[in-house]
Amino acid sequence: MALAVIPKDRITAVLREKDILEATRQALIAQAEGHVKAPPPGQLMFEAANGDCHIKYGAIQGADTFAIKVATGFYDNPGQGLPVTCGLILVMDARTGRPLLLLDDEGWLTNMRTAAAGALAAHAAAPAQISALGIIGAGEQAYLQARWTARLMGIENIHVWARRPEQAGALSQQLSQEGFQAKASPNTADLLQSCNLVITCTPAKAPLFPASEVRPGSHIVAMGADSPGKQELDPTLFARADTVLCDSLDQCLDHGDFGHAVRAGHVPETKATELGHILSRQTAGRTAPDQITIADLTGLAAQDIAMADLVRARLPDQ
Amino acid sequence: MALAVIPKDRITAVLREKDILEATRQALIAQAEGHVKAPPPGQLMFEAANGDCHIKYGAIQGADTFAIKVATGFYDNPGQGLPVTCGLILVMDARTGRPLLLLDDEGWLTNMRTAAAGALAAHAAAPAQISALGIIGAGEQAYLQARWTARLMGIENIHVWARRPEQAGALSQQLSQEGFQAKASPNTADLLQSCNLVITCTPAKAPLFPASEVRPGSHIVAMGADSPGKQELDPTLFARADTVLCDSLDQCLDHGDFGHAVRAGHVPETKATELGHILSRQTAGRTAPDQITIADLTGLAAQDIAMADLVRARLPDQ
Repeated sequence: MALAVIPKDRITAVLREKDILEATRQALIAQAEGHVKAPPPGQLMFEAANGDCHIKYGAIQGADTFAIKVATGFYDNPGQGLPVTCGLILVMDARTGRPLLLLDDEGWLTNMRTAAAGALAAHAAAPAQISALGIIGAGEQAYLQARWTARLMGIENIHVWARRPEQAGALSQQLSQEGFQAKASPNTADLLQSCNLVITCTPAKAPLFPASEVRPGSHIVAMGADSPGKQELDPTLFARADTVLCDSLDQCLDHGDFGHAVRAGHVPETKATELGHILSRQTAGRTAPDQITIADLTGLAAQDIAMADLVRARLPDQ
Repeated sequence: MALAVIPKDRITAVLREKDILEATRQALIAQAEGHVKAPPPGQLMFEAANGDCHIKYGAIQGADTFAIKVATGFYDNPGQGLPVTCGLILVMDARTGRPLLLLDDEGWLTNMRTAAAGALAAHAAAPAQISALGIIGAGEQAYLQARWTARLMGIENIHVWARRPEQAGALSQQLSQEGFQAKASPNTADLLQSCNLVITCTPAKAPLFPASEVRPGSHIVAMGADSPGKQELDPTLFARADTVLCDSLDQCLDHGDFGHAVRAGHVPETKATELGHILSRQTAGRTAPDQITIADLTGLAAQDIAMADLVRARLPDQ
């Protein structure tokens, strides 16, 4: 029997944001509670093309299926009129090893589950009063983080900073058109002064701002460091932080921002907690208003599996 | 644009054995010469279903494409009327990160490139006169190894041993019907007495025969140990061997039979040479008739990439 390929439009037609959020929340909890068998992600770097490929795969304990997700980020693609990211998810039968379904989502599911995790991580340790949401980066994921987080948390004010001011301007304009109070910040110091909830979503390979720019009472969510060599946060910020949340301790130690801080000796490995433990309400993400908190997200196979399961549940003929 | 899926029948229709052999030879040479970027394979084990999944992926230096191969072995599948192995190869654009082609070959390409590597490894260090070809195992790969090796080397006599005698009988009968002089051996001692070229192709997790059964002048090719935990050869055989060939030193040390011998302290890592160096004629695989030689094969992403390239070359509209 030929492998069934589900094109992107059928996938986007059946998934709703609230289902994606809930599935992502459950995936992060399953990860923290040890119910996911997911080896370290595969990584391939394409230096000449300024691209990378991640392969995330794994199984939820006892499930009938498992999933293999391929995601690419080729950062010069916009110059050719192509999106930066792409990807697909292969769903396999865990009882026979046979492929069941190919979700040819062009990276959409990865983008959505990443946005959902960012919003959940933002919510998990945010201060009670948000002065404004700060977004660092101006790509597709920056847009999604702004939108998902602002909607989940009822935030109106969004400040955007990006290395290229024209892109920050374009994103803040887009968000304004969607009804948010959005503006571009002139620099990171201004953004971190105005915003006590900040999400970084860039492919940066060096810290985006000095730790000294972060005010007490801020929550910083770092989304970008999903491969060895990437880095968004000043590693000394982890020493200042009261709480560090990781989507996966193993992954964040291997290639997240937290790993940079641990290897540099600023903090011990034991400083971080897995985000899923906060989401299942076993632990508080923030215990005082003036704490600095960090969430470091690398992206989990568990999230990809959750998206595949969600698509299958919503396409009952599969 | 929807991802193009090439079904198995279109793939089998265009590939010829001699092309597969030559592409495999070049892949093994490229591996040995360091032209392949292939991270360690991904592995997932499904203990309850007696199955495993390998994800092999990588890129040839400077190539326009890269490949991700998924292969499964679920050893109880025949009880449900399904083949043990399955798999597919995803071909990606190395300049944009976008998927180009899905080869839905149901594991056929993996089986073929594995058979080709076995035949090449058998030939690379075989004694000048083959008394008979010994095959240990009676599954699909055992059949392919027998056929490909006997054809490549012009061997008529084949002896088969398997844990289940009825399966060894069935395989020897099948090979006889194809014109070989095939018989089932009553035990491994008999097979190793009669055959000075022996290929093991089983999912064994413990040595199949004691090293003492191996006569001087024998070449043993071990195909089966492609995951941590699998093992076919008595590790002390590596101490007796004059030459050890590995398809990939890294992989064989990690999960091949050679790795078991090194970890047990029987031989140093430096004892092995990569098979590709023999195939490119930089080194001799055997230098005296009474030597014991071993080839340990784990299966390379380079071989999968080579198969994908071959299919694309033979399907010029892709």
